[in-house]
Amino acid sequence: MIRFNNDYNHGAHPAVLEAIARSNSESFPGYGTDGACQEVAGLICELTNAPEAAVHFLVGGTQANCTLIGHALRPWESAVSATCAHINVHETGAVERSGHKIQTACDVQGKLTAHALREIAEAYRDSGVQEHITKPRLAFISSPSEYGTIYRRSELEELRAVCDQFGMYLVADGARMAYGLGAGTADVTLADFAELTDAFWIGGTKCGALFGEALVVSNPALDEGFRASIKQNGALLAKGWLLGVQFKALLENGLYFALGRKADEQAMRIKGAFAAVGIPLLVDSPTNQQFAVLTEGEAAALGERFLFEPEGTTAQGGRIARFCTSWSTTDGEVDALVTAVAKLGRR
Amino acid sequence: MIRFNNDYNHGAHPAVLEAIARSNSESFPGYGTDGACQEVAGLICELTNAPEAAVHFLVGGTQANCTLIGHALRPWESAVSATCAHINVHETGAVERSGHKIQTACDVQGKLTAHALREIAEAYRDSGVQEHITKPRLAFISSPSEYGTIYRRSELEELRAVCDQFGMYLVADGARMAYGLGAGTADVTLADFAELTDAFWIGGTKCGALFGEALVVSNPALDEGFRASIKQNGALLAKGWLLGVQFKALLENGLYFALGRKADEQAMRIKGAFAAVGIPLLVDSPTNQQFAVLTEGEAAALGERFLFEPEGTTAQGGRIARFCTSWSTTDGEVDALVTAVAKLGRR
Amino acid sequence: MIRFNNDYNHGAHPAVLEAIARSNSESFPGYGTDGACQEVAGLICELTNAPEAAVHFLVGGTQANCTLIGHALRPWESAVSATCAHINVHETGAVERSGHKIQTACDVQGKLTAHALREIAEAYRDSGVQEHITKPRLAFISSPSEYGTIYRRSELEELRAVCDQFGMYLVADGARMAYGLGAGTADVTLADFAELTDAFWIGGTKCGALFGEALVVSNPALDEGFRASIKQNGALLAKGWLLGVQFKALLENGLYFALGRKADEQAMRIKGAFAAVGIPLLVDSPTNQQFAVLTEGEAAALGERFLFEPEGTTAQGGRIARFCTSWSTTDGEVDALVTAVAKLGRR
Amino acid sequence: MIRFNNDYNHGAHPAVLEAIARSNSESFPGYGTDGACQEVAGLICELTNAPEAAVHFLVGGTQANCTLIGHALRPWESAVSATCAHINVHETGAVERSGHKIQTACDVQGKLTAHALREIAEAYRDSGVQEHITKPRLAFISSPSEYGTIYRRSELEELRAVCDQFGMYLVADGARMAYGLGAGTADVTLADFAELTDAFWIGGTKCGALFGEALVVSNPALDEGFRASIKQNGALLAKGWLLGVQFKALLENGLYFALGRKADEQAMRIKGAFAAVGIPLLVDSPTNQQFAVLTEGEAAALGERFLFEPEGTTAQGGRIARFCTSWSTTDGEVDALVTAVAKLGRR
Repeated sequence: MIRFNNDYNHGAHPAVLEAIARSNSESFPGYGTDGACQEVAGLICELTNAPEAAVHFLVGGTQANCTLIGHALRPWESAVSATCAHINVHETGAVERSGHKIQTACDVQGKLTAHALREIAEAYRDSGVQEHITKPRLAFISSPSEYGTIYRRSELEELRAVCDQFGMYLVADGARMAYGLGAGTADVTLADFAELTDAFWIGGTKCGALFGEALVVSNPALDEGFRASIKQNGALLAKGWLLGVQFKALLENGLYFALGRKADEQAMRIKGAFAAVGIPLLVDSPTNQQFAVLTEGEAAALGERFLFEPEGTTAQGGRIARFCTSWSTTDGEVDALVTAVAKLGRR
Repeated sequence: MIRFNNDYNHGAHPAVLEAIARSNSESFPGYGTDGACQEVAGLICELTNAPEAAVHFLVGGTQANCTLIGHALRPWESAVSATCAHINVHETGAVERSGHKIQTACDVQGKLTAHALREIAEAYRDSGVQEHITKPRLAFISSPSEYGTIYRRSELEELRAVCDQFGMYLVADGARMAYGLGAGTADVTLADFAELTDAFWIGGTKCGALFGEALVVSNPALDEGFRASIKQNGALLAKGWLLGVQFKALLENGLYFALGRKADEQAMRIKGAFAAVGIPLLVDSPTNQQFAVLTEGEAAALGERFLFEPEGTTAQGGRIARFCTSWSTTDGEVDALVTAVAKLGRR
Repeated sequence: MIRFNNDYNHGAHPAVLEAIARSNSESFPGYGTDGACQEVAGLICELTNAPEAAVHFLVGGTQANCTLIGHALRPWESAVSATCAHINVHETGAVERSGHKIQTACDVQGKLTAHALREIAEAYRDSGVQEHITKPRLAFISSPSEYGTIYRRSELEELRAVCDQFGMYLVADGARMAYGLGAGTADVTLADFAELTDAFWIGGTKCGALFGEALVVSNPALDEGFRASIKQNGALLAKGWLLGVQFKALLENGLYFALGRKADEQAMRIKGAFAAVGIPLLVDSPTNQQFAVLTEGEAAALGERFLFEPEGTTAQGGRIARFCTSWSTTDGEVDALVTAVAKLGRR
Repeated sequence: MIRFNNDYNHGAHPAVLEAIARSNSESFPGYGTDGACQEVAGLICELTNAPEAAVHFLVGGTQANCTLIGHALRPWESAVSATCAHINVHETGAVERSGHKIQTACDVQGKLTAHALREIAEAYRDSGVQEHITKPRLAFISSPSEYGTIYRRSELEELRAVCDQFGMYLVADGARMAYGLGAGTADVTLADFAELTDAFWIGGTKCGALFGEALVVSNPALDEGFRASIKQNGALLAKGWLLGVQFKALLENGLYFALGRKADEQAMRIKGAFAAVGIPLLVDSPTNQQFAVLTEGEAAALGERFLFEPEGTTAQGGRIARFCTSWSTTDGEVDALVTAVAKLGRR
């Protein structure tokens, strides 16, 4: 079976693994105070054009999200996200576990809109019973979203404007950042994220690292005490250099961006294959996740050789199937899938 | 101004105040271990036909809900409620503060349906990724609901059946229990609530008491450690007898039920008055809360003499106005409102 | 049996009960937004000489403490208290339930010393591993303490100085404030508390009210969102005016202070009686709580007619017995106890 | 500088790194559902003689402790530990963050005694005010302890007996399990831990792994919902197989135990070196951590070439210095330290 079911089914890009192996003969101070972490933090500040940003390395995405949100919010404040957001549907209530409500807005193709965010902020402002409801204080987005769509710079600016008007933080989950930046239609860079959000993270786990995410806190007010929050959430890796050397390997020579572009190109081939035979896509995703709407027969046919992720059914009964490429996907694997899709021949 | 804005704008029924005054010359042991609390707990067990139920007295409703839910759930479990439920929209995230997500289902006239509850339970069961989502473990209802509607015995039985099938608790918020029991269309008694829920509470604050709610835990498994949870939530009243003597005054001679019936009858007069002039009601409420859909002019006209609660607007721009009767509403006040409504003369 | 076991075994001073009764014919807006609460808040600002302080009314002491502490602290911060502090030993972990560690220091006669507080603050500052330990951010004291002792102005100034140096809040639990202010040796007033703490509360439950505590937040930075925290903790009384009218009755004519002085004088008579017969007191308390160290025989003899609170044994096996006076204690009751103690005749 | 400052300053044993590298060409299902995790879980069940135990793999120790404790306890329950326990002093209040108080008992050479545990359990049982205090429900130990001492089988049996009598869980932190098992005086095995505790973990991070801990839940009642708790705590590694292959490499051929024995032998050489020159050890540790009490001059002399961990001062002003060996310590490094210590020549 060829795995297109997710983008975390292989270990690490060889360059990352080699970096870890090279570090194995050295000794380091603990908890991310080592030179590798400091060096790559500096590199990230350059790449994001945010010299005063703080960079923290965490092991996983749920950890990054719930640590950051639990840190940022006061007890009576809530996070706002699209209904489909990972924090709302796939993190076992980790944000609520930290004491905070998530207020959800219907997503538009997986994205939180500035319009929806404004409505929630205005509803709070105009409620007249502020002490009876939580204060929306942090807008959470993922780019790429759960449906592979990405925020354009204008959309981030609009969200930022609402956040500025209502005193909210804007936070971006970048679990698939490489695939977002690598999209053909992308018009944002890491520097845009640093400029327009208060904090965001650059995903490693799904983008070539063995594990790990680099959290960039671009708003200094959010950084006070943050290392203590990381530790308190059980998220301060003792051997922090393992994260530093991985991100150094990924970022110092542009590997991270190249991996993202390549996987997106592969995904575009898959997208094109579906389109060519008239199989609809659930959303118009420019990134490594493609959601095809299959018939039962098509799902069965592709399922003989490929692993993909069932994502429920459409109102018309179509079977939504997610196909992911990743840094580890080979051209041969894509060829095989494209060929198999072509044979489905709906047209 | 005559207050129809809510059902907690007056102190207490005179009989309740007299009971407190009578107790003022005595001394008591603290924290609800006194004779008055024990006596009325026994009375409640009789009224609910639940000899083994535990009865606890708390000061307020938000306190009762969040203490009970936080006590009942394990960390990875969630509560299920209608979207409009008080715990979801008017308790400042108290349930989330205790660490738990609320999963919401669209309400039908303010009520959680067995169908919606089953869908949520089945979605969890069938998800295949149970560790990534919270387990729906407790169904929360209010009867009367936020819209004044009440659950019929058949509806409670259906909810109970779903809870039994999926291992969930059923909990009922009875902030307005007197008005629910007193409704002309009601077919449930306190005994039905004790039989069909795991815990429910008999509201005092809105139903004739100075303050206080009587929480009936009919499922003994839920009661272990519950007094510790009450204390931990800052909800164990030092002078617990104040709650005991109030509920004794309300319950020992049927006063509680009489107050509810009377306020419902008054509400039916108001409902009739709106209907008579063709002013629509948002829902068909048989209890003390009536939601009229007014024009701007009508709202202004009634607003000159009466306080009522604005509850937003309908899609068509109608102004939703809540009018509450209560144990303290006089016939004269209702006469005045009925007369004023008749003068609106929409027809 | 005559109750000296605690100071919350009777209802309310008649003037308080009358105030509640008088309010019963009126109607009010809810949640403490009424005129009575506003009026007495103004009066408290005058009494505390703190025109910009915010005053909030809560029902009970555990509620006041855990709401305030949970509100004030960021997740990685902790409270510091004497080991014997109520929040550490008698509130069922309510502070921890809100997510915060309590760091304890050995008390000196029930009190937290500036020296001990400084040691904890310096240990954190000098630890070199700040992210691995919680940040001591709030010093919690009770005056009178659990042992009836009170803080002198110089002691409060010393604590304040440490708090200022290390960026900590100073918070005072005043459950027995009336008895502290009324002590013959007292050199502080409400204005001193407002000046030297960030927040403190004026206890009603144990000092003549039916129930309720008045929380004075003298540091405006602590007040942001506080009403939301009150509601979130289930501590926002729907009929808030009940608290307002009680504190008005207690404070507008000095009744509160008179009640405290009287109970303290009664306690001094009891203290004198023990001393006269050579029965040692555990601490030198100038307030309404006296801790006698009895023999088994003495405890049995007094126990025939009086209720008192056993508080463990001394290292030498003496039985520590707490005798409380309160606003409700009659001179006749004190006479009876004094006579009984005299008969013990240890000398 | 030669690092004796801790036991997590190097990457991984080569066999572990090779296992990770080997896995890099394969693809796996996520979240620990892969074959490697299952295989090594089976192996651990064999080694612990606990066929029905559940085995979970987590990334770090703080994570393992706070996830397990937060999972096991109901809201009103507390953990009991020695004052020096890692959860009490070096995890930034992670247990309290999960809502639970830690009740501490003075340690005896780093260990919680059955006597102290019993006193806490009896104090709760006999308090008469159970609802005002938290219920001690889980005894937490570390073996080796923070001071390198280990529990003997008889000590574990005594703790187990107290836990059984009072309905408490016994949980063991095994961050340095290899060094505990490898001690010359050790009389316990993994099977003893599985038999006598409800849950314990086998540390990888400090014992040869790149990262990771294997948590053995030997009490099935504790395992319900545990994977959800792991995820909720942000502790469910997406690429779970990375943990599986590491523990397989460590455990399948006894490498784990050999590494522990070797490091302990090295530590005994260091211990002997200190003793030979009359430098006292703080405690009699049979494992990889040795705490020498140095003079300022000795500390300075050793500090020129060796990194060690300052651990405060003794009452007499001695400088406590922790020297750790680990799986990565070379004989040459130990030779160098032994030689340097010999030159100190206090005698």
